[in-house]
Amino acid sequence: MATKAPYTLAHLAELTGAELRGPGEFLVHRVVSAGENGADAITFGSNEEYIRKALASDVGAIIVPLQAPDLGRPALACDDPRAAFGKVLALFIRPVPVEIGIHPTAIVQPGAKISKDAAIGAYVVVEDGAKIAARSVVGAFGYVGAGCVIGSDCLLHPRVTLVQDVRVGDRSVFHPGSVIGSDGFGYLWDGERRVKVPQVGGVRIGNDVEIGANTTIDRATMGDTIIHDGVKLDNLVQIAHNCVIGDHSVFAAHVGIAGSAKIGRRVVMGGQAAAADHSVIGDDVTLAGRAGVMKKLKEPGEYFGVPPIPVREAMRQMAFVGKLPDLFARIKALEERVKELEG
Amino acid sequence: MATKAPYTLAHLAELTGAELRGPGEFLVHRVVSAGENGADAITFGSNEEYIRKALASDVGAIIVPLQAPDLGRPALACDDPRAAFGKVLALFIRPVPVEIGIHPTAIVQPGAKISKDAAIGAYVVVEDGAKIAARSVVGAFGYVGAGCVIGSDCLLHPRVTLVQDVRVGDRSVFHPGSVIGSDGFGYLWDGERRVKVPQVGGVRIGNDVEIGANTTIDRATMGDTIIHDGVKLDNLVQIAHNCVIGDHSVFAAHVGIAGSAKIGRRVVMGGQAAAADHSVIGDDVTLAGRAGVMKKLKEPGEYFGVPPIPVREAMRQMAFVGKLPDLFARIKALEERVKELEG
Amino acid sequence: MATKAPYTLAHLAELTGAELRGPGEFLVHRVVSAGENGADAITFGSNEEYIRKALASDVGAIIVPLQAPDLGRPALACDDPRAAFGKVLALFIRPVPVEIGIHPTAIVQPGAKISKDAAIGAYVVVEDGAKIAARSVVGAFGYVGAGCVIGSDCLLHPRVTLVQDVRVGDRSVFHPGSVIGSDGFGYLWDGERRVKVPQVGGVRIGNDVEIGANTTIDRATMGDTIIHDGVKLDNLVQIAHNCVIGDHSVFAAHVGIAGSAKIGRRVVMGGQAAAADHSVIGDDVTLAGRAGVMKKLKEPGEYFGVPPIPVREAMRQMAFVGKLPDLFARIKALEERVKELEG
Repeated sequence: MATKAPYTLAHLAELTGAELRGPGEFLVHRVVSAGENGADAITFGSNEEYIRKALASDVGAIIVPLQAPDLGRPALACDDPRAAFGKVLALFIRPVPVEIGIHPTAIVQPGAKISKDAAIGAYVVVEDGAKIAARSVVGAFGYVGAGCVIGSDCLLHPRVTLVQDVRVGDRSVFHPGSVIGSDGFGYLWDGERRVKVPQVGGVRIGNDVEIGANTTIDRATMGDTIIHDGVKLDNLVQIAHNCVIGDHSVFAAHVGIAGSAKIGRRVVMGGQAAAADHSVIGDDVTLAGRAGVMKKLKEPGEYFGVPPIPVREAMRQMAFVGKLPDLFARIKALEERVKELEG
Repeated sequence: MATKAPYTLAHLAELTGAELRGPGEFLVHRVVSAGENGADAITFGSNEEYIRKALASDVGAIIVPLQAPDLGRPALACDDPRAAFGKVLALFIRPVPVEIGIHPTAIVQPGAKISKDAAIGAYVVVEDGAKIAARSVVGAFGYVGAGCVIGSDCLLHPRVTLVQDVRVGDRSVFHPGSVIGSDGFGYLWDGERRVKVPQVGGVRIGNDVEIGANTTIDRATMGDTIIHDGVKLDNLVQIAHNCVIGDHSVFAAHVGIAGSAKIGRRVVMGGQAAAADHSVIGDDVTLAGRAGVMKKLKEPGEYFGVPPIPVREAMRQMAFVGKLPDLFARIKALEERVKELEG
Repeated sequence: MATKAPYTLAHLAELTGAELRGPGEFLVHRVVSAGENGADAITFGSNEEYIRKALASDVGAIIVPLQAPDLGRPALACDDPRAAFGKVLALFIRPVPVEIGIHPTAIVQPGAKISKDAAIGAYVVVEDGAKIAARSVVGAFGYVGAGCVIGSDCLLHPRVTLVQDVRVGDRSVFHPGSVIGSDGFGYLWDGERRVKVPQVGGVRIGNDVEIGANTTIDRATMGDTIIHDGVKLDNLVQIAHNCVIGDHSVFAAHVGIAGSAKIGRRVVMGGQAAAADHSVIGDDVTLAGRAGVMKKLKEPGEYFGVPPIPVREAMRQMAFVGKLPDLFARIKALEERVKELEG
């Protein structure tokens, strides 16, 4: 756990492995964006533009690339200012306030197994057959349903719901309001009404996964919906039953993945993008916001639209659509000229 | 309530009304998808392709159509293998663990009326004037607001919010995080600011309705927002104030229905599809994902796009849009040829 | 607080400043939409069409414009019937049932400061360093995280989550399931995995803001995500980290605003509309549902599409797209005619 601010510039140099340029005893009380004022703050500038913005403010210290000249202001110089700044930012994280042990208001069923190093917050409910491993934190109002297994060093922010049979690896993070393991959306029409297809599968979530606020992931009909290692889901994302999401894929807010879709590794989907049921997306595909995959998209690359086409081509098509009124006029003129010629 | 697994194949034959082909004493411990291994499991194959997939695995037993030949493996044969498999799946449902009666941590206001056969879970709050009928279950953290009425055999998974004046029929199911009865989104601009139109109506939900995780349904300004019998809403769906959704309609995730829209019976809307405020959709309309109804769409059929056009026509239009660059080139060539002719 | 229904027509005339036309002692028990029956109810008709609808029902009383003729039915006449009806509607609001003071089941950390006039509901958790001002109400299951500050006269419906460092002005309203202050969605790819950019900023929310059910607003990476005075967000809206939303802007359901976007004042965005990261939208821009701003849109006006173009132009383009099959046929014919001429 971090000590508390302020930090000396010398301490930050050591933390980030940066070269100290200026007084080591300079005190950093907070972090600001490049361009924001703050004589007691530090910021970063990874290129000339941002360094100029930072210098135009009264910010106390700046993290810059090694090749940057002396700025006449306290600085840390290093290979990757953005990554170094990330380490400084991490000092200012204030953890979810849950103490190790089980809060007296938590209701833990006798058949649940909770590591003595885990932290179970106020008004948490843990059902029978659930397991929570070492150093994991369950924030207030957490619900850990029957048969759910949480690995070590996980963080459930307040108000997370794991409905049933959700198995989570290590170091995964869940934001408030996320619901994992709700029933898949499956019905059969019997001629008069929809009959529910019972949903008895689970959800398997890997290591280092992060799930956004109010995001939903449905349990499989049978077997598992699978979220592989390193996947990052933004807020309000929907992952339907029996989907498989490959390692390190990242989906922005409002993305919707329909039932049984198979998404590859390192796939990036912009906001509101979607994949139809049973669709397949290959590794290293990047989809712009609002793109929609209807069947299959295997070739790595950047895509736009429904169905998705390479971004450059899509931009060209959109330009042509804008010229349609003009095109119709040109055709009308041509028709008249041809009629004239036909005499 | 189901007995526990394993089940004998003979028991499953009786349950599903299927013909037993193989040893009645064969024990089924679990259910798998066609193609998954599992010597202790059962799957189903409703056509040759799926039967072939199943036979390629070591699955213990298969549910097949009556006309299927002998497979050399334990099987159940019946008219509708999918429906029969649904009955088997249902044996593996593990109910939300709430006991009949009122959990000691539940806060039930004195003016609420709760059937002695209902099950009210941990940390539930039930306000004055609420009523909950026989055999309904309210999972942990449920909120049943003032004037809410829940029929019999309903299931509120953990963390469902019925804000106020929500009346629900029988056998309806609510998934975690769903919010029913929040204020409609109505304001008047007074020249300087938006003034809230008070929202004092309710929500009426029929029988056999299912509401997905984190789905929201707003109360009416006055009168009721109405969700008719058999409607199924997926996760993260929005139903605005004063909408009416007809019997057995089904909306996939992220569908948005704006204020006062009237949706017919058996309407199907794909993911992220939408209907504008005061729009009208007729019975038996099917809308592809991302379709958007702006005003009125009465004729039954399958539609795509904004505004929606018949799917076949839409596919044709999309193909033409893809050919636009070519089209522009052809027109330019024509213009030059005509100029030449006009010479 | 309103007295309880019924109200005399004379009382409603006084409340709304309207001219009483009919018996002042007529009793109004409820409010209905124009066209709905209700001999004990009042409705409003702001134009002839709605007055006609109202008169076709048996509604007991009608609020009409001053210039309306005598209707032969109890009426209130005034300049703005819609606004007057809003005041009548407000009489029928039933407040969230939370009493002044701190509910015995609420867990308030010793470092939190709560006004003695505030109302803290059942199973609320308030962390250290939080402040809640006079007459604000926190409904059941509310979570008010460390460092969160709530001004006076705010209303948090049940199940609202303010994660950390969320500062709210006066008279703002939060609907159930809304999550404010969850981590922004920021990662750096280190060649093998995504490394989280720590999110240590906060959220600043102005006065008279309203936040819909299950809507999410992320904290800034550093500094603040800012929602200015009078902003109204519908359900399931996403506001990403470091966004700024100008005074009195209003976003319908499923709108998504990506990171660091700057939205002007009085901007209106229809359902599912979106703004890309770092995009800029000027004051008084109105975007139709599903519109998407990719970079910049400064000129006030009404827009449609991606990228957004003026509505009239967009409708024209869409019409032309519909005529594309015909266009291709015309070009083919032209080509043949020109070939003939060239022959």
